[in-house]
Amino acid sequence: MATKTITVEGMSCAHCKQAVESALTQLDGVSSANVSLEQGNVAVDFDDNKISHSDMAEAIEDQGYDVK
Amino acid sequence: MATKTITVEGMSCAHCKQAVESALTQLDGVSSANVSLEQGNVAVDFDDNKISHSDMAEAIEDQGYDVK
Repeated sequence: MATKTITVEGMSCAHCKQAVESALTQLDGVSSANVSLEQGNVAVDFDDNKISHSDMAEAIEDQGYDVK
Repeated sequence: MATKTITVEGMSCAHCKQAVESALTQLDGVSSANVSLEQGNVAVDFDDNKISHSDMAEAIEDQGYDVK
């Protein structure tokens, strides 16, 4: 299990928070995702044997946000 | 039929736009609703025999936004 904080641009409201958290937690291998709108990032707990950073970044970008 | 532009605070992204437009067009008597994020308002076409400003304001506020 690993924890990573991913910086995400463009999240502005509760809907954005929900969209990003849902997209991540639906991925196999992600156990939790917690967006901070104030900090512009998402803290993710995941199994690094099952999922990579690029998989998670792609899920975020598919929701219309930019990963830095 | 009447047209009114309602000023709404707190709409920040495409999800907000969608939430407000959906809430309004689901009301009986509203034929269209078009949010401008840039201007912070929503233009509504409605039948003023069927629905009042306060009904529409309540629908917007139920989504978590403030009507000015």
